[in-house]
Amino acid sequence: MYSFDYYNPTHISFGEGKITELDKLVPVTAKVLVLFGGNSARSTGTLDEVKAALGERNIVEFGGIEANPTYETLMQAVAIVKEENIDFLLAVGGGSVIDGTKFVAAAAVFAGDPWDILLSWGAKVTTAMPFGTVLTLPATGSEMNSASVITRKEFQAKLSFMSNHVFPQFSILDPTKTLTLPERQVSNGVVDAFIHITEQYLTFPVNAPVQDRFAEGLLQTLVELGPLALSQPDNVEVRANLMWVATMALSGVIGKGVPHDWATHMIGHELTALYDIDHARTIAMLLPGMLDIRRESKQDKLLQYGARVWGITQGTNDERIDATIEKTREFFETMKIKTRLSDYQLTKTHIDEIMIQLERHGMTALGEHQEVDLAMSRQILERNL
Amino acid sequence: MYSFDYYNPTHISFGEGKITELDKLVPVTAKVLVLFGGNSARSTGTLDEVKAALGERNIVEFGGIEANPTYETLMQAVAIVKEENIDFLLAVGGGSVIDGTKFVAAAAVFAGDPWDILLSWGAKVTTAMPFGTVLTLPATGSEMNSASVITRKEFQAKLSFMSNHVFPQFSILDPTKTLTLPERQVSNGVVDAFIHITEQYLTFPVNAPVQDRFAEGLLQTLVELGPLALSQPDNVEVRANLMWVATMALSGVIGKGVPHDWATHMIGHELTALYDIDHARTIAMLLPGMLDIRRESKQDKLLQYGARVWGITQGTNDERIDATIEKTREFFETMKIKTRLSDYQLTKTHIDEIMIQLERHGMTALGEHQEVDLAMSRQILERNL
Repeated sequence: MYSFDYYNPTHISFGEGKITELDKLVPVTAKVLVLFGGNSARSTGTLDEVKAALGERNIVEFGGIEANPTYETLMQAVAIVKEENIDFLLAVGGGSVIDGTKFVAAAAVFAGDPWDILLSWGAKVTTAMPFGTVLTLPATGSEMNSASVITRKEFQAKLSFMSNHVFPQFSILDPTKTLTLPERQVSNGVVDAFIHITEQYLTFPVNAPVQDRFAEGLLQTLVELGPLALSQPDNVEVRANLMWVATMALSGVIGKGVPHDWATHMIGHELTALYDIDHARTIAMLLPGMLDIRRESKQDKLLQYGARVWGITQGTNDERIDATIEKTREFFETMKIKTRLSDYQLTKTHIDEIMIQLERHGMTALGEHQEVDLAMSRQILERNL
Repeated sequence: MYSFDYYNPTHISFGEGKITELDKLVPVTAKVLVLFGGNSARSTGTLDEVKAALGERNIVEFGGIEANPTYETLMQAVAIVKEENIDFLLAVGGGSVIDGTKFVAAAAVFAGDPWDILLSWGAKVTTAMPFGTVLTLPATGSEMNSASVITRKEFQAKLSFMSNHVFPQFSILDPTKTLTLPERQVSNGVVDAFIHITEQYLTFPVNAPVQDRFAEGLLQTLVELGPLALSQPDNVEVRANLMWVATMALSGVIGKGVPHDWATHMIGHELTALYDIDHARTIAMLLPGMLDIRRESKQDKLLQYGARVWGITQGTNDERIDATIEKTREFFETMKIKTRLSDYQLTKTHIDEIMIQLERHGMTALGEHQEVDLAMSRQILERNL
């Protein structure tokens, strides 16, 4: 196990009806900017419930944060924070709204050009506004970590930042709020969480059995419950457990003290930025080929993953790895997510475009061994055609 | 899964050489009371290393905190805090020193009689001094939670308290510091962590697969590495992983959203208070009989535990449970911890004494169903004779 620092001060309030806790969690005198995405926060009644729980507090609303939240939109929220003397932010939504709120929290008090927050990967963030979240779409884990991914439209760039200053003070996780999600988002959430876990787990062994077994436990739970979330869309217990998996997946407990990959995410971000494909779908169409091409350096963990998560213990190493990758692909397809570029009308021509963006963004040494250079990225993309 | 609140703001700094981080973690202007136990902090050189890392800071030392730290001793530390205008506490040791430091942190700023902290189970604690820890004996998980167990000698009472105000600000976990531990303490630590996990896991199913699998992963790791810690006493990687298991076992990740038992601990505390037997040994001699007597209400989880941790899947339910309890007992014995009251020269006469204390302390409805009344406690004790 590597040396590590673990720190995660976010207070999680989990369960049905927990939105009423806002009255305890948000300072009584706060002037609150409530940030949300499209119309669903309003149409499902969650926004009204949030406002009722906030009682007499002074509230300003900011809707319209996109999936893959944009710098352009968020800077409008920053302007409102300043104009209206907002002193507390409340994100109501999924990972995009929460990621966006983290950026607003840092940018609103940032001395200098807020774009530097992203160019410095968050290193230049020295303070941020306090904020909490009400999670309605479990997937990204943003509700219990300090990371954020922001898209700048004019540059077709998707960049991330991290800072201990942008942990949510609290996150309210009410699984009943996820019952109104469209099936597409349920599928996306399960697959997104799955690949968050593999990015921290499918690397190489460093003798970290706790992190490994926690990761395997989360993956097993997704494999078991993911399909049930589609076949039993009203089953709150299934939703509750999936919600907790997604939160734990990126809270640090499985990722501290072990190597990380994230090549799938880095390449996936380019696909979203270029073609506006759902994040989860981009990484689902990349992972199988990614594991195939990199099977040698990932061999030990692929065999362990195959055995412990899929029960694959027979055959040569290559046979076991083939079967393991196939099981992974099948799982995504069972979740109704297509796993090949061609399923999204992407061809060799598009791969050329993606390569240009990867090069432009310096994505030339990805993965736990930095071995994913541009040539290997092209191989991976072609393997997934 | 039950509704829950999870909050754990302790910063963990894990790895060899991390004691030097004290210089960043303790405020530069702090006047620090360094609390420790017996002579080992000094003889192993850890205390010197801590003092070197604290540099020019003003330091007062307070040694002599006992295993099962006493109210009497800790109130002396409280007096020193007040006399010397101490504003930061640093625990250097294992669970006893850390538990004691938590009490000092709360008692030193408590308005009223500090004994009320324990009589109110911590409910009356509204503030506490800031403190950090340097962990030298992994076992109790106290380095990353808000619980503390204190003994008041004059009453032969062992009472606990919890408060969000007594989370350590940071804990430094350097696994090399555990290499000098006597074998007895290594054994105790492994078994203590094991039973911390079973208290939160071996109850009844509430459809909480994440918590279950995390608990099983920790138990599997103890089963795998515990014996290696005895046979390979210089293996730092083994120690590192055991250290992380013990911390995770009581950090909240496996215990939130599920029922808890703790009957084994409650009865065990009486044995320590009466006969000064190591905490881990008291619970090791209670757990097998506890599971045997309560096999019906715990059936589902005992079968799950047997299958997933011990691979026991054949036979009738009772046969599987018998085999599972036997495996648990054997594991403790492999860790060189005896598992019967008679191994500690305790007889029926002692059971009568224990019963008097249980009644005196109101321990009349223990366990996840409050079904462990005095009669059942006697049965359990007799089954473990």
